[in-house]
Formats: sequence, structure tokens, C-alpha cells
Amino acid sequence: MKIGKVVGAVWATRKAQCLQGQTFLVVESEGAQVVAADQVGAGVGDRVLLATGTVASRFCMEAPVDAAVVGILDPEGRHVSP
Amino acid sequence: MKIGKVVGAVWATRKAQCLQGQTFLVVESEGAQVVAADQVGAGVGDRVLLATGTVASRFCMEAPVDAAVVGILDPEGRHVSP
Amino acid sequence: MKIGKVVGAVWATRKAQCLQGQTFLVVESEGAQVVAADQVGAGVGDRVLLATGTVASRFCMEAPVDAAVVGILDPEGRHVSP
Amino acid sequence: MKIGKVVGAVWATRKAQCLQGQTFLVVESEGAQVVAADQVGAGVGDRVLLATGTVASRFCMEAPVDAAVVGILDPEGRHVSP
Amino acid sequence: MKIGKVVGAVWATRKAQCLQGQTFLVVESEGAQVVAADQVGAGVGDRVLLATGTVASRFCMEAPVDAAVVGILDPEGRHVSP
Repeated sequence: MKIGKVVGAVWATRKAQCLQGQTFLVVESEGAQVVAADQVGAGVGDRVLLATGTVASRFCMEAPVDAAVVGILDPEGRHVSP
Repeated sequence: MKIGKVVGAVWATRKAQCLQGQTFLVVESEGAQVVAADQVGAGVGDRVLLATGTVASRFCMEAPVDAAVVGILDPEGRHVSP
Repeated sequence: MKIGKVVGAVWATRKAQCLQGQTFLVVESEGAQVVAADQVGAGVGDRVLLATGTVASRFCMEAPVDAAVVGILDPEGRHVSP
Repeated sequence: MKIGKVVGAVWATRKAQCLQGQTFLVVESEGAQVVAADQVGAGVGDRVLLATGTVASRFCMEAPVDAAVVGILDPEGRHVSP
Repeated sequence: MKIGKVVGAVWATRKAQCLQGQTFLVVESEGAQVVAADQVGAGVGDRVLLATGTVASRFCMEAPVDAAVVGILDPEGRHVSP
């Protein structure tokens, strides 16, 4: 997964039938932007875990989803183990 | 998925049998061009949602399609959630 | 898929058993070179459609093929829809 | 797989249900950072083997995991065969 | 597939159980290094065919292998078809 930051959302009234009901967030990660299906109720500004590729569609079976937000990082962010 | 813009189309009379009947759009996204199977009736100039990888072939089973246009972004484009 | 140009071929006498009988073309696309299994009888100089990833192996089941030439672009190349 | 170095870990209290119980390490490889599910008990500073893509989820079935630490390189690191 | 050159090997005593018995070669391709399971008995200096992604694991079922050496290029290397 990648660490990313939610910077917005997109809407597409005209879309593949199987994508109905999904929320699509725009996530910025390492300088690139990805549109990902939200699985955890993330919002703009949240630092999130972004899964990409085929595994991202496991929550949205039969839909061509190649990116999903699968976690929200804890506020303390990232720690180095002691 | 990626946000892209349809900039043209390609035709290949000689192609794998299972690709017959598909419309192939040229989509520009982050400086690169991808040829994607159209699933939503997109046209040149449309800003679209581009799915890539294995999931893109879910609409075109048994065909080696690794990119598909799966949505057309609403004209207002992209919003930042309030 | 990507648009590429066939620039040569490679031969590997010693290869995985399941790859026997395949023709491997060298395709140049966006500055990088990929070795792809030929599915349409393409030759050097042809502009082709290049499929990559798992979907590329659908024509060559049980073989670790991650790239395939799946179409030859028409000579008029690429058009912008009217 | 890629050779990487564990540089930390991340925690996400709010995450997809199927990701519960996983340890997520931050691995640096060729200048980029990836968050990977730990399969071998690796710690900060370890040089590891990093598997990415669909195959990474084979240890964590039904979870959208696209990266996993699958081995710890021996201290002598990497050898050139004699 | 990519054309690469074997530049070494890695050993990992501590690794996922299903990776036991595999030989892992370090292959250089287009400036990047990949660790790949050897399927053809390649050695340092050999120019090889490198398969990546899910298809690479077809020889090593149930193992998270995302890269495999699947062929050794003939010494004459690469030819341009006449």
C-alpha cells in the first residue's frame, strides 16, 4: 500500500453500472493523483492507506476498481519502532 | 483509477479475435498515453475515469484488455468536499 | 494498452517449457522496451497495440507471459474523432 | 521482488475489517516508500524482500493487501556467485 | 517481459515458508534491480527474459513471487528480422 492524503473527490454521473454507489476520493501520493473507492469513510485532509491493483477490487466485486482507500492513519502518523 | 482526457481513438483492423467490437480511445493521463476500451460512450475532450490492470477486463471477459474508460467526470469536474 | 513499435525479436533456446512455440517481439513504447508474445503476426516496423500484465497471458494459458501484441494499428494510424 | 529496508511502521485504528491483525511496515526501496504487511517478523533496519501486487495478498486472503515483506536478507547481504 | 542481466543472487534464511527451495537472482533491467525466482538455471552475466507480476508466480504456486527468470537469451542476443 501507499501512504497518501485525500485532497478531494470526483463525481461521474455517467459511469459503468457496477460503479454505482461508490464514493471516489482523489488521493495524492508521491506526487501523483489516484482516484480511489473509499472503504473507510475518509475525508479531505486525512492521511490514508491506499491499496492499488486487482486487490483493491475485493471490496467492490464485479467492478473495475483498481484503487481503494483501506485505512486512515492514526493522527500520530507514523512511528519508528523503539 | 486515474483522471484522464480523451484525445483520440485508434483502429486496428488486424487484431486478436476477442477484441472485435471494442472501441479503443486514446487517453492522456499525467503525461502518458494509454489506449483504453470505452465502456461509457466517451468522446474526444471528455475528462474520464481510467481503470487499468486486470480489473479493466471485467467488462470484456476473455479479452486481453488492460485499460478501460469506466466513467465520464461531471462537467463541474472535481470538488473539494466542504 | 499502449501504442508501440516493433523494433526486433529475441530468441531464447533455453526457456520455460510452457513458453515453447511463442514468438517474442521487442516493442518500444514511450522510451522503454518490452518483450511481448506476438498474437497477430506483427513484424518489425509495425505500430501495434501492446497489452501488459496478467491479461496478456489469456492467449497463452499456463505460461508466464506478461506482455502481448494484440493488434496492428491501421496505416492511417490514429485519428481524432470529428 | 524488490530489495528494501524497513524504516518504520504505521498504525491505522480505522481500517477495513479484513486488515485487522496485520502489522504494516514502511519499506524504502529505490527511493520510494511502500507500506507492506509483515509476514516474517521484520524490524526497523532489516534489509528485506518485498513482494508487490496481487501475489502479496496470498498470505492475507480476502484482504486488499498489495505489498508484503516475505523474507529478511541474510546479514552478508547480497553475493555475486563465484 | 523485460530483457535483463543477472548481476547476483540473494539469500534469505528467514523467509515465508512457501518460498523455501527457490533460487533468487538479482536482475538488472533498465536501471532498476529486481529479485526474481530462477526457473531456467541462469547464472551471473546471462542476459535473460524477466516476467513480472502475477504471471510470474505460475511456476511457484501459493508463493508470493512477483518476478521470475523464464528464459536465457541466445548468445547472438537480439536480432532485427530481415
